[in-house]
Amino acid sequence: MAKEVLIQVALDTLDPQVTLDLAAKTAPYIDIIEIGTPCLKYNGISLVKEMKSRFGDKKVLVDLKTMDAGEYEARPFFEAGADITTVLGVAELATIKGVVKAAHDNNAWAQVDLISVADKAACAKACAEAGVDVIGIHTGLDAQAAGATPFADLNLIAGLNLGKKISCAGGIKPETVGDVVKAGADIVVVGGAIYGADDPAAAAKQMRELVDAAAA
Amino acid sequence: MAKEVLIQVALDTLDPQVTLDLAAKTAPYIDIIEIGTPCLKYNGISLVKEMKSRFGDKKVLVDLKTMDAGEYEARPFFEAGADITTVLGVAELATIKGVVKAAHDNNAWAQVDLISVADKAACAKACAEAGVDVIGIHTGLDAQAAGATPFADLNLIAGLNLGKKISCAGGIKPETVGDVVKAGADIVVVGGAIYGADDPAAAAKQMRELVDAAAA
Repeated sequence: MAKEVLIQVALDTLDPQVTLDLAAKTAPYIDIIEIGTPCLKYNGISLVKEMKSRFGDKKVLVDLKTMDAGEYEARPFFEAGADITTVLGVAELATIKGVVKAAHDNNAWAQVDLISVADKAACAKACAEAGVDVIGIHTGLDAQAAGATPFADLNLIAGLNLGKKISCAGGIKPETVGDVVKAGADIVVVGGAIYGADDPAAAAKQMRELVDAAAA
Repeated sequence: MAKEVLIQVALDTLDPQVTLDLAAKTAPYIDIIEIGTPCLKYNGISLVKEMKSRFGDKKVLVDLKTMDAGEYEARPFFEAGADITTVLGVAELATIKGVVKAAHDNNAWAQVDLISVADKAACAKACAEAGVDVIGIHTGLDAQAAGATPFADLNLIAGLNLGKKISCAGGIKPETVGDVVKAGADIVVVGGAIYGADDPAAAAKQMRELVDAAAA
């Protein structure tokens, strides 16, 4: 039986109109629209509301990367229509639990971002126990620039069988997306390979085909 | 000779008008206006521009808590008038260096936030070598709720004599601010003790008197 794998497009531009246009172009082929951290900080919650009003049939992920004041920071975003927000795995567990509470109060998901976590297995287990819905493997942009990839971490977390969705982000390209799916990702995050393509819609369509083929 | 100690008011409300009003009430007594992380994420860069246009004689700190894409995320905020932005000490050193570059290109300061850093001394030393201007000791709101205070960390970092400004945040009250100054803080961050007071202007004035007395 084919596994359902979701595609998330990460929108890391700053201009709100460009961001909305990219969402429109790629929406037919993807499941989750991510408002990236720099984009969110630049535009604020109004872009979240606008995105959800235009693309109500898609999940909207707001990449808050919350580090403190978990419930306080995340709650208004869930109330504004976010389906998923992220909290950093390097944050205190109390912060993570606050985001989980805000998410579940709004029938939404909390995702932990394991970026720069030293002991990722221990963090993922603690987050799963705390009620986090999605474990996010994430090789950041600055780490990618230094040559890092998310594959080792993905294998590690998939091997834990925590019963949570696994999201994988970090320079995923057409050449590597099949391996990411086969290694156990439930959500494949694609950023530059879509928004940096000459034809983002075509790039998203190709990703859809590759992901569905790998998941079949 | 008296040491110059700056007072930073941390504005952690979400409503932009309330935030601007609090800045106006406290401005006569403080040196740095901090747009807190939840407030920034909620309102975006437009609030930074508005704050700087109204309070051009104050430093404006944007508490970005940058975790990735350091230069890309921070640069527009410096260009919008921020005098200081923060980057997380738990981030990759490449991220921290990116924020430093964006800051120094704009004649501004980069501040590292040591929140949840395991080895704070090593991190502070590495950040000082990387050109960070301010070392931020920070007991987060969620950690404060669990009873933590910033004093041990402040003593640790002050003892390193790194030649950088030291900022201290984490539940500082009138009863404790004198000890924070005497322990070596160059910047005292006050949040709830001002914005949660019945009369925020009076609370800020009292803090000014206490800080100046302790620094004399």
